[in-house]
Amino acid sequence: MKENEEIIQALLKFRNERDWEQFHNPKDLALAISIESAELLELFLWKKAEDANTEKVKEELADIFSFAFLLAEKYEFDVKEIVLEKIKKNDLKYPVDKAKGTSKKYDEL
Amino acid sequence: MKENEEIIQALLKFRNERDWEQFHNPKDLALAISIESAELLELFLWKKAEDANTEKVKEELADIFSFAFLLAEKYEFDVKEIVLEKIKKNDLKYPVDKAKGTSKKYDEL
Amino acid sequence: MKENEEIIQALLKFRNERDWEQFHNPKDLALAISIESAELLELFLWKKAEDANTEKVKEELADIFSFAFLLAEKYEFDVKEIVLEKIKKNDLKYPVDKAKGTSKKYDEL
Amino acid sequence: MKENEEIIQALLKFRNERDWEQFHNPKDLALAISIESAELLELFLWKKAEDANTEKVKEELADIFSFAFLLAEKYEFDVKEIVLEKIKKNDLKYPVDKAKGTSKKYDEL
Repeated sequence: MKENEEIIQALLKFRNERDWEQFHNPKDLALAISIESAELLELFLWKKAEDANTEKVKEELADIFSFAFLLAEKYEFDVKEIVLEKIKKNDLKYPVDKAKGTSKKYDEL
Repeated sequence: MKENEEIIQALLKFRNERDWEQFHNPKDLALAISIESAELLELFLWKKAEDANTEKVKEELADIFSFAFLLAEKYEFDVKEIVLEKIKKNDLKYPVDKAKGTSKKYDEL
Repeated sequence: MKENEEIIQALLKFRNERDWEQFHNPKDLALAISIESAELLELFLWKKAEDANTEKVKEELADIFSFAFLLAEKYEFDVKEIVLEKIKKNDLKYPVDKAKGTSKKYDEL
Repeated sequence: MKENEEIIQALLKFRNERDWEQFHNPKDLALAISIESAELLELFLWKKAEDANTEKVKEELADIFSFAFLLAEKYEFDVKEIVLEKIKKNDLKYPVDKAKGTSKKYDEL
């Protein structure tokens, strides 16, 4: 089994044992991702980038991945496929000669 | 090469071609994840869960995964490992007999 | 009329002219606040604190206030009252002698 | 003193007693608003709009207002002024005859 399929199977097992599919509609999964992202963000609040607690970053990032994989599963997206596809789009949005070394958004390039 | 290693290599190639590593400190990557999560959330705003545009969900979710993988790479986390580890912790936090069928948080169980 | 009552009346007029009350349930208003907060956050992404565009900060902050006032109105909260009340609670959570000069969370003090 | 000036004075007093101005740069204040917004959002997670705990909504909303007022103060924005100004802009972005009864974004009208 591929890596991400294994992750998804483990997440579905955890969810189904608790009968939580009823709560996991796409909208609330999107809320969950936002909430976990803010918990990650909080680890950096009032701090320098290098001062967050690594152990906690690991846990919050794992939570973000968990809900993101569950949402991908809902829509039957293949994670590798959609990321590689998005990189291709961004290749056009951010051409190397214009985007190199600048953090500007594509509509300001 | 494993799936997630492939994803990360593609993301690093994209980043390095543009010389963007200088911007990608962990704090700003955490901001980026939050921002992309909110863009996903916006697809559901004022709508029922099933009414979001699938094509756009795919793109926003890909953005979230991209920054999440880049942050994992910064900390040298293996995504499969940290998710499976978190599931184990949640197994203790949300025991099946208490958590089944309820959406309560662990501290209210 | 008090200042915040004026703000709320202007927001309700704008909303009602467009017949948008039907969309403004508390859950979606909470989503809207999160989404606008992330748009504010984006103005600081990959940047130093002082490098955000002031004019844009003004607009995004206005959006956050707008949805926050609309949510307060839904629950009939008086904004001045709830903020002063929260400051009192935080006075106990963060006693000056322990909290002074540190950015630690109350549960780490 | 006007209402919002009173709120801001109370917030500044609380902040200064704790010597926290050093942490309150605009970027981290924006992070704080996002984080508090997500805590508000969490009160609605896996729930219907009407099922959030009112007392907790009050507290999280107060936190959002607190950091939003502190950020407004940093930039010397008058809250009433910037909200009324934004409503005027939105009046043009969302003309009544096009926007009435629809939740579409301005660029889809």
